[in-house]
Amino acid sequence: MAEATARRRGRGGGGAARRAERTSVKIETAKYIERNIPNYEILTAEAIEVIETNADAILEEVGVNFVSNPAALDRWREAGADVEGERVRIPRGLARKLCATAPSRITQHARNPERTVEIGGNTLVCAPVYGPPFVRDAEGGRRYATMADFEKFVKLGYMSKWLHHSGGTVCEPTDVPVNKRHLDMLRAHMVLSDKPFMGSVTEPSRAQDSVEMCEILFGKDFVAENTVMTSLININSPMTFDDVMMGALEVYAAHNQACVVSPFIVGGAMAPVSVAGTLTQVLAEVLAGIAYSQLVKPGAPVIFGAFVSSIDMNSGAPTFGTPEASQILYGAGQLARRMNLPFRSGGSLCGSKLPDAQAAYETAHTHNAALLGGVNFMLHACGWLEGGLVSSFEKFVMDADQLGALHQLAKGVPIDTNAQALDAIHEVGPGGHYLGCAHTQANFKEAFWRSDLFDYKPFETWSDEGARDTQALATARVQTLLSQYQQPAMDPAVLEALDAYVAQKKASMPDAFV
Amino acid sequence: MAEATARRRGRGGGGAARRAERTSVKIETAKYIERNIPNYEILTAEAIEVIETNADAILEEVGVNFVSNPAALDRWREAGADVEGERVRIPRGLARKLCATAPSRITQHARNPERTVEIGGNTLVCAPVYGPPFVRDAEGGRRYATMADFEKFVKLGYMSKWLHHSGGTVCEPTDVPVNKRHLDMLRAHMVLSDKPFMGSVTEPSRAQDSVEMCEILFGKDFVAENTVMTSLININSPMTFDDVMMGALEVYAAHNQACVVSPFIVGGAMAPVSVAGTLTQVLAEVLAGIAYSQLVKPGAPVIFGAFVSSIDMNSGAPTFGTPEASQILYGAGQLARRMNLPFRSGGSLCGSKLPDAQAAYETAHTHNAALLGGVNFMLHACGWLEGGLVSSFEKFVMDADQLGALHQLAKGVPIDTNAQALDAIHEVGPGGHYLGCAHTQANFKEAFWRSDLFDYKPFETWSDEGARDTQALATARVQTLLSQYQQPAMDPAVLEALDAYVAQKKASMPDAFV
Repeated sequence: MAEATARRRGRGGGGAARRAERTSVKIETAKYIERNIPNYEILTAEAIEVIETNADAILEEVGVNFVSNPAALDRWREAGADVEGERVRIPRGLARKLCATAPSRITQHARNPERTVEIGGNTLVCAPVYGPPFVRDAEGGRRYATMADFEKFVKLGYMSKWLHHSGGTVCEPTDVPVNKRHLDMLRAHMVLSDKPFMGSVTEPSRAQDSVEMCEILFGKDFVAENTVMTSLININSPMTFDDVMMGALEVYAAHNQACVVSPFIVGGAMAPVSVAGTLTQVLAEVLAGIAYSQLVKPGAPVIFGAFVSSIDMNSGAPTFGTPEASQILYGAGQLARRMNLPFRSGGSLCGSKLPDAQAAYETAHTHNAALLGGVNFMLHACGWLEGGLVSSFEKFVMDADQLGALHQLAKGVPIDTNAQALDAIHEVGPGGHYLGCAHTQANFKEAFWRSDLFDYKPFETWSDEGARDTQALATARVQTLLSQYQQPAMDPAVLEALDAYVAQKKASMPDAFV
Repeated sequence: MAEATARRRGRGGGGAARRAERTSVKIETAKYIERNIPNYEILTAEAIEVIETNADAILEEVGVNFVSNPAALDRWREAGADVEGERVRIPRGLARKLCATAPSRITQHARNPERTVEIGGNTLVCAPVYGPPFVRDAEGGRRYATMADFEKFVKLGYMSKWLHHSGGTVCEPTDVPVNKRHLDMLRAHMVLSDKPFMGSVTEPSRAQDSVEMCEILFGKDFVAENTVMTSLININSPMTFDDVMMGALEVYAAHNQACVVSPFIVGGAMAPVSVAGTLTQVLAEVLAGIAYSQLVKPGAPVIFGAFVSSIDMNSGAPTFGTPEASQILYGAGQLARRMNLPFRSGGSLCGSKLPDAQAAYETAHTHNAALLGGVNFMLHACGWLEGGLVSSFEKFVMDADQLGALHQLAKGVPIDTNAQALDAIHEVGPGGHYLGCAHTQANFKEAFWRSDLFDYKPFETWSDEGARDTQALATARVQTLLSQYQQPAMDPAVLEALDAYVAQKKASMPDAFV
């Protein structure tokens, strides 16, 4: 890991800040992926037309519900929708027209400008697992997550070269009251990492707190003009937009903060059992949700989300990394690009209880589909286990390492003279070998991607060292990364202001655990 | 598993054969994959042109070696190549022109006509691991492979629904003399399975034995007119065609039996460290090898092979499932399709010592690339471990199960009225669920692919049942499949003739162990 001085946005900070900078270890983080490879398109032009036509028909004929949200109903009525009770029926073409004001690309700023990401076009930004109430590691097994676990995950995310984003609820800190934990989570992302992060969505007031904490971190003027959070707004599929999520979206949209508007679907339960039917519903839901964001504030940054798994019809369990999920991902990517919107899907999704082969097969399927399917924002890119119930420490570093392979694949195939290597083929000739030739000498360091985790050792060495499997190697890597962790430099005045804000907010309300 | 009577080619066989048929268990085997999805193309038109031009230049300027094979040199001289010692320099365009007589699609017959496969066009035929001297399972660890292991793998292959092909050297039976083991291996494929298989390539005489055993199994006339073996002819990269492999190819080509002509490359050692350079060499080698097959017999069935891994520049170990390997696979597929030839690549390739997460990540990368990259014949599709040194019983069933996911993904996205599911979306509406709706009832059985191996159980059930990881589940599955195995029906007269042939051949020569 390279030692270097972190460049920081010029916000003053004085001698203490400069001293903090000088002593900090600079962690190497790869730039977000910019694909130099084509997207994989599974839907024919005809299939796209059918799905788009059907989605529009669904919006007009069936409509969507905006629950307990009179202001939303007013906005829809005013925009020309047919509102009946909480049901909003949207005339053909209206939703797509409203979506047209959403930007096609989002710059999400990090407090360290080197970590700022672009979401849209040919980019892919990777963020960690989001939401599990449990954690697991080899030592402690499966247990409820705590704030201490949360902080460890933020540190691991900061230390992970191929992870661009610190994420949001990397696990649920169940030892902190529900109505206060967003404060501790945001503080951890802001202080323990310098990568971009997500805001709270569990109450509109907590979204507002998130904005205010960002104003402390980035400065009020900066936040007014720039996107500094990307937050996850799930649609309650099928076709239902609840007041909590919409309330958070309203806060973020009004502040120009980005939202992922995302159907959350277990196919067969929240959507039809067919891929085309599910894509139709996904498109209808996203059209309605993003149109609504633009009714709140035209131009508000949003991402076309599609979180879709399927169901095991034997057990009723959600399943992940399945071929149907890949088909839906590929198809949803095409639909998102037709709308010229950034696309969120993918992740280290798996159903396995352990970071074993099942977990890896399922994760790799989704990782590959996400890269080839044009995903711009991959939430859950590492650390997901057991259908999203568990954040796994080992799987976090295993998956995060794998993201490096996606970076390399995304580079495409250079075809310049050096890449053609004609000189090498002439030099070596039939029966020779390339190990020592000039072209190899000049290029070998950058030639092949290499895992920082996997075993590449000779059998005997591996055997002598304990014949460790991937989980055991990952346990060691978690320990190494945490032992090497050093907090990134931060202006002490900002830290003090953040802590004061958190303390004041916590003191202002009683604990709530539901 | 459905009980049914095996249909068999009408070759007589009398009462005993019919009795054998009646008592046999019919194993369900999926038809080879026919893709209804597009191929993924990573190379631009410009890149293809550069690579094709360079490959032609390499053949003309550098040439290839045909070692210890005067007849081959004569054939090349006669065809218009510049032969100097063992070096064959091929004028621009000549190799491609010679390749034009090779068929674009191969029908490889199995003794059970239901298992006959088509190799080429949009198909994907999956065959198991080939070549490892060791086997591994959870109980016995890593050890030298024996004929008993070999037979177990053939049985597992026969029992594996998503595996279309019985393969060849599923492991090296090191307890049988080198000069005789091909007889036992072929007999095992012929008798213990009814799927198509591969012939011996370790000596031209053993290729001839393979043909003769097929003449017993299929009938001499049938073999004269049909392809009943697909055999693996590795090129000794860079650019070297040895007499053993070419001798086997000559036997097979003369008998209209299919050969995979396949560069065997660890990038950085046997080819340049760049993707474009490696693709150039692969293309040059395949052009020369396939052109030679057509010099032996115009119209001989051949497959464009590309077995390419990369090297870990730290340890010198070959690495598998890497992003560079995927890029090469995608690119080689494009080059093969430009030649209108069937394409061999992919597999369950991995470097891991155990069937753990590393093994699964690496395998899944290659499986996905093989499906999307247009592979027609995937050797090593299951069971490969430790860089090809080990055939793993557990990984065999893990990977074979995963091939089911490829079948499902390959089906593409149906867009008929039932798939559109508009009725379901209307019926369920906002806030409802699809579990009981008419469309779900009508479609759920076929809707989602389901692993026969993975854990989909509730956490508590899984925990009560011993908290097994994928390897433990696979150990149990190996035992179950082997316990359920029943030999497919075979005409006793054919079996007797095969056994007599093997006995006579074995008696005709002393044992050789090198």
